[in-house]
Amino acid sequence: MRPGRRSTREEEMITLYGSKQSRAALNIWTAAELGIELDLKAYDPRSEGTQSEEYRKLNPTGKVPTLVDGDFVLTESVAISYYLARKYGGGKLLGKTPEEEADILRWCFFGMTEIDAFAFQLMLETKFRPGEANEAFCEECKYHITNALNVLEEALKGREWLVGDEITMADLVGIRCAGFTLYVGMSLDNWPNVAAWVKKGAERPAYPR
Amino acid sequence: MRPGRRSTREEEMITLYGSKQSRAALNIWTAAELGIELDLKAYDPRSEGTQSEEYRKLNPTGKVPTLVDGDFVLTESVAISYYLARKYGGGKLLGKTPEEEADILRWCFFGMTEIDAFAFQLMLETKFRPGEANEAFCEECKYHITNALNVLEEALKGREWLVGDEITMADLVGIRCAGFTLYVGMSLDNWPNVAAWVKKGAERPAYPR
Repeated sequence: MRPGRRSTREEEMITLYGSKQSRAALNIWTAAELGIELDLKAYDPRSEGTQSEEYRKLNPTGKVPTLVDGDFVLTESVAISYYLARKYGGGKLLGKTPEEEADILRWCFFGMTEIDAFAFQLMLETKFRPGEANEAFCEECKYHITNALNVLEEALKGREWLVGDEITMADLVGIRCAGFTLYVGMSLDNWPNVAAWVKKGAERPAYPR
Repeated sequence: MRPGRRSTREEEMITLYGSKQSRAALNIWTAAELGIELDLKAYDPRSEGTQSEEYRKLNPTGKVPTLVDGDFVLTESVAISYYLARKYGGGKLLGKTPEEEADILRWCFFGMTEIDAFAFQLMLETKFRPGEANEAFCEECKYHITNALNVLEEALKGREWLVGDEITMADLVGIRCAGFTLYVGMSLDNWPNVAAWVKKGAERPAYPR
């Protein structure tokens, strides 16, 4: 049973559009950490389902993930995870004080703008754009990612999780973002704290496999 | 007097490092909307102050903005504005329901990852990188920004603000991001709703000039 949510037979499921191979993985992980059951429509990015008229009524961009909870439709993966934690998770994963909460949001923006944005561009350039990859562009992306990993490495020194004593949204987002760099051909060998943290996240029972 | 904050003579000011010509403009705007007084250290990005040993103790990346509130140090512009609104603004600018709150956060991530990230790259490529700008790269950035402006144009149809009936963080962040595209040489002529919204934001008494 989801905390804060009515548990009746007529209750409608929360639907999530997006596969484990998309940014929806963050939401699948979040929901599992919170014990929230999702009706998962495992749409891959740019797949047929995401381009259908029905889906575009929910999300005109044709991107995933999209969450549908009754009449409420929500996009942007981090916002979706925050919504799940705030509304149905009793505040779990969101910190205990205004300072912790702010710090968690800080790491979410840091992960998405300093790592994910560049890893995503690197993925497009090396895997999805026609022709040879633009080397200067790839180096630029890696430069920004490297700086961000340096910041994470320092922040994780002597710590189990980024904020407070427990796993929070900062870790879920950060681990997904740092893990994304492996997918685009980078290594975490130079950042042992980050590598251990990504591994620890991936070993959680709730982590999507 | 800031709501929720002790008002004593010994009270320390909240310090913000960053100029109106940086992402700190969002925080300056937010604080003014909330009636919060800041001790502003108007450091421009990459200026001498940001590279000093003293500043790097607060923010090892040497970037702006950084907020210092007593012992608490916070980076990432959107997280800083959320912190100000949550801790000292009595929840103003953050919506009235979990759904509004989620939608606001959604637009903040949308603005930062779908517009700001690309406008920032476009700025680096056209204004700060040596040599001629890579045309294909610039077109790619503009393609993503164009898609995002299309989404905003549709979302603002018949609405004064993005979420609910009042201005929220969604508008502050979105207007700053959409306005950023003008700085990198794009025009908002094709997006009249967005243009009117950016103008309406810039006309607020609290808008940093």
